[in-house]
Amino acid sequence: MIRGAKAHQTGCLNSHWIIVMPTIRLRPEDKDYAISAAIPVTDPGLTFIYGRQSCDTRALEGGTIDVGNANYSGQEALIIIDDVFVPFERIFLCGETEFVSPLVERFTAYHRRSYVCKSGVGDVLIGAAATAVDYNGVPAASHIRDKLVEMSHLNETIYGAGIAASHESFETSAGNFQPDDMLANVCKHNVTRFPYDLARMAEDLAGGLLATCPSEKDFKSPEVGPILEKYLKGRADVPTEYRLRMLRLIENMTHGRNSVGYLTESLHGAGSPQAQRIQIARQMDIESKKKLAKRLAGIPEEEP
Amino acid sequence: MIRGAKAHQTGCLNSHWIIVMPTIRLRPEDKDYAISAAIPVTDPGLTFIYGRQSCDTRALEGGTIDVGNANYSGQEALIIIDDVFVPFERIFLCGETEFVSPLVERFTAYHRRSYVCKSGVGDVLIGAAATAVDYNGVPAASHIRDKLVEMSHLNETIYGAGIAASHESFETSAGNFQPDDMLANVCKHNVTRFPYDLARMAEDLAGGLLATCPSEKDFKSPEVGPILEKYLKGRADVPTEYRLRMLRLIENMTHGRNSVGYLTESLHGAGSPQAQRIQIARQMDIESKKKLAKRLAGIPEEEP
Amino acid sequence: MIRGAKAHQTGCLNSHWIIVMPTIRLRPEDKDYAISAAIPVTDPGLTFIYGRQSCDTRALEGGTIDVGNANYSGQEALIIIDDVFVPFERIFLCGETEFVSPLVERFTAYHRRSYVCKSGVGDVLIGAAATAVDYNGVPAASHIRDKLVEMSHLNETIYGAGIAASHESFETSAGNFQPDDMLANVCKHNVTRFPYDLARMAEDLAGGLLATCPSEKDFKSPEVGPILEKYLKGRADVPTEYRLRMLRLIENMTHGRNSVGYLTESLHGAGSPQAQRIQIARQMDIESKKKLAKRLAGIPEEEP
Amino acid sequence: MIRGAKAHQTGCLNSHWIIVMPTIRLRPEDKDYAISAAIPVTDPGLTFIYGRQSCDTRALEGGTIDVGNANYSGQEALIIIDDVFVPFERIFLCGETEFVSPLVERFTAYHRRSYVCKSGVGDVLIGAAATAVDYNGVPAASHIRDKLVEMSHLNETIYGAGIAASHESFETSAGNFQPDDMLANVCKHNVTRFPYDLARMAEDLAGGLLATCPSEKDFKSPEVGPILEKYLKGRADVPTEYRLRMLRLIENMTHGRNSVGYLTESLHGAGSPQAQRIQIARQMDIESKKKLAKRLAGIPEEEP
Repeated sequence: MIRGAKAHQTGCLNSHWIIVMPTIRLRPEDKDYAISAAIPVTDPGLTFIYGRQSCDTRALEGGTIDVGNANYSGQEALIIIDDVFVPFERIFLCGETEFVSPLVERFTAYHRRSYVCKSGVGDVLIGAAATAVDYNGVPAASHIRDKLVEMSHLNETIYGAGIAASHESFETSAGNFQPDDMLANVCKHNVTRFPYDLARMAEDLAGGLLATCPSEKDFKSPEVGPILEKYLKGRADVPTEYRLRMLRLIENMTHGRNSVGYLTESLHGAGSPQAQRIQIARQMDIESKKKLAKRLAGIPEEEP
Repeated sequence: MIRGAKAHQTGCLNSHWIIVMPTIRLRPEDKDYAISAAIPVTDPGLTFIYGRQSCDTRALEGGTIDVGNANYSGQEALIIIDDVFVPFERIFLCGETEFVSPLVERFTAYHRRSYVCKSGVGDVLIGAAATAVDYNGVPAASHIRDKLVEMSHLNETIYGAGIAASHESFETSAGNFQPDDMLANVCKHNVTRFPYDLARMAEDLAGGLLATCPSEKDFKSPEVGPILEKYLKGRADVPTEYRLRMLRLIENMTHGRNSVGYLTESLHGAGSPQAQRIQIARQMDIESKKKLAKRLAGIPEEEP
Repeated sequence: MIRGAKAHQTGCLNSHWIIVMPTIRLRPEDKDYAISAAIPVTDPGLTFIYGRQSCDTRALEGGTIDVGNANYSGQEALIIIDDVFVPFERIFLCGETEFVSPLVERFTAYHRRSYVCKSGVGDVLIGAAATAVDYNGVPAASHIRDKLVEMSHLNETIYGAGIAASHESFETSAGNFQPDDMLANVCKHNVTRFPYDLARMAEDLAGGLLATCPSEKDFKSPEVGPILEKYLKGRADVPTEYRLRMLRLIENMTHGRNSVGYLTESLHGAGSPQAQRIQIARQMDIESKKKLAKRLAGIPEEEP
Repeated sequence: MIRGAKAHQTGCLNSHWIIVMPTIRLRPEDKDYAISAAIPVTDPGLTFIYGRQSCDTRALEGGTIDVGNANYSGQEALIIIDDVFVPFERIFLCGETEFVSPLVERFTAYHRRSYVCKSGVGDVLIGAAATAVDYNGVPAASHIRDKLVEMSHLNETIYGAGIAASHESFETSAGNFQPDDMLANVCKHNVTRFPYDLARMAEDLAGGLLATCPSEKDFKSPEVGPILEKYLKGRADVPTEYRLRMLRLIENMTHGRNSVGYLTESLHGAGSPQAQRIQIARQMDIESKKKLAKRLAGIPEEEP
């Protein structure tokens, strides 16, 4: 029987199962909390309290422009677990406190390496910024091209660390592969920084209309629509509506529903920035680096 | 008689007057556009098409928590000017195309220097992040203190350039003071960068609950409220509601209504980043700097 | 009678006087160290132990090219003070431990504000980089222009904070003006960062020849000189020697004698980076910023 | 028969062979320059004109402290090729201008990926900074630890992109593996930035004595040595000489002989920063990213 809560559960409502596990190392006397188990999301003992997101109610207005991304979004919930019974075959840990710490560390390495997924979101944002620039009708100025290059460089830097963490994984006796802990943390740590830079550059390229644009309803009204069509026109051969659609997608990713996933979750998901720094400190093997330096500086091995 | 549109007008609905002026240098044949004049916002020839902001409809929901900042916000509008007559005493420029370029440059210097105001918004965000940390109930870890210091450092760097631009202003023959053009642009250019860094650090300090927090209605419901009270409690002596209020204020400034003013407008208001770079290039007086270098390198003055 | 040492004394050998003072707050029992006094550099009780600088011996080789900057440089020394007698009229503090702390703080504010001088060195480096680009004979590519703009922007940001610190100074009862402590620290803190960025960009613009260039002696030898003249030629109308002179000046400022003053001293002079952060933390008045945030979030004044 | 010059040849004097190849795409009429061949460094037709490095003459002074790194260094030379005959079996390209462009691109990808080696140099610098901190005798302050973590994070970010470029390599029909072009350029582009940040942080941690330290000769003189021993002592149980040795190693890597390899060469070796940006622009496949964005924004595929 399990009782308690799981906070900040991204995507739990569109999952089939939730898995509970400890999040910190436990002492022997904490063994009642040393539980890992799978629970189906349909279990009647679960209650999901939905989290609010920026612009959440905009999704209920109808329309397909202002919402930014009419087909996809995510959600977070606080899950209340109220006396849920878990049969033995779905229990992975049950009181073995000595395994909690390695379990948390192994899970963390997987989870942080998995944040390479944000480079996929970054691809979309780069594409959106490039399209907004096209639609604005400005020529391909060098500073615009240069910002797209910088966005790509940062995005691929995230990608590189993620791939490298898997390349340097090791096989466990169970047969699965455990990613390199240092590189997994480095990947996630870059994710806590670069998406904010990409968001700023995307807004820079999109232009201020991103934040001052009138509503879809005005745009579709017979009275106001033609005025907006006239004054908000960008490139002559692009429908003004397309221009608005692209700006709303960028707004969605930098200030709206999906900015929760692209920005805040990039910071705090799989551990906040300081959590990675602690793990990098553990992995950085400073003593062996000191030895390299001492040898080059002509200091005997045995010195302090 | 004036006809046309003014886009992206921040705060126009709570102003008494709007002032129209050219935004680019004009040639003699453009003289019909060389107009600067004051129009009362109540002029029947004006139409204001309101811009949408992130989380705008949340302000209409009622309640005082989720809205983040229940008392203050801003707005942008597209202003349509439809055959507005302006009497002679409110006309400042009327066809004198030779004065357009200096008018734009002088206005720009004022406007960019005025963006020092964002350091006041930064003060609020620093205070909000510091309070959120207090309410989270974590001890004053060194990395938290260090992030508050970094936020203050960046915020005061904005302030310094603004103050310096005024200190180095010169008196015009009309008796007003014109800020230093280089420093005014440097001030604004820092504003296009640092608020994004402050927003990231504020979210870092606030914690992920910023983006996963359930609604005010859930919090006030007799059924769900006590559950949230229990699981979202931070420091024992702080009402959970205060904690939520502070997180919602930060959400408001980094993803919601006021992020339009603190982030996007900091980028694009008074000219996008590239506009400042062009002006810095004009002011940087590279030829005199080359002379300094040549003198120290022992290269004769008259060389290429 | 004073006895002890003063470390890291920049420019002491070309000064007329050295002034000694405490560097940390003292307790009453430390009163023998609560001394501030002026000593002429010619006092026989002083010994100056000269510090080495990168490329110091190059200055003794003769020639005017490889040395980079043939006329100006600086120096640091460790000063040993061996029973120096100071007459009463040159003593400014003598055992009054209660004044040590304000004395250090006031001096520190002056000293950190004075680091605005590095923006003058920055002007030279910007000019040198711009000239090296001219001499390389490449057209004025946009990315080159953009780096010069970025260098200027960072350099003027240093300048702005320095000017602002003086503008916001207050008059003491003695009649002198004490700079604003926060802005003086912000100025110095930017100095610990931006010169390193400027150095990187200057090297970027200069090109790799900066670090691979043969010697002045080779360049002037009848056998090797003409070969170098042929292969190291940049722009057709610029003597190759001028090109080398400018590269050597940049080397001098980024890896040579003057990099001590432009880089390392920018980091550690007037206090290392962390010293400014401590002072910014003291000045940032976080409690008043928390009040601003609480008021906007609708949290009563008297709450925790 | 080959005639011409090869500039900026790192490590050529300790190599057995030099390989010449074109560096830019050639037109059919340039076919005399479409040459790739191997030449032994002992060929009498080769002349090596040695490049100067910062602090090069310090290596000739004798002693083992001031030199920083008494056993290892590098060199660059300008190689003059004066009518060198190459037999057929050492010729790889001879007039086939159509292969020049792919040859340059393939070589560039290899070369840029190989710059992952600078993360090894970074390991030494991190170890040197950590040792200098130990020897300074200051307690392990949080800001010091945090800077070592940041140095490691940046250094491992370089490493990650390099490893990933190899992981995503493809096998050519000749059987060798060609690294991923985007990731190889991203690796090198990070190398143009992060070593400068690591150098700044290493100097920050080392302290100002790095740049003000008296000479080895003074340190070993019977008269001055004991004074230095007294005043430059750090931690009680560490010989002052060890402290100086470590500071000189850091000086060597940030301002001295090896800063040429760790800093300037990191910028310009295998192509200056802008060369990577051009290649990233070519690889970033902006059109496919635009399609992703259009699909999410609800814009039909066939639109502009």
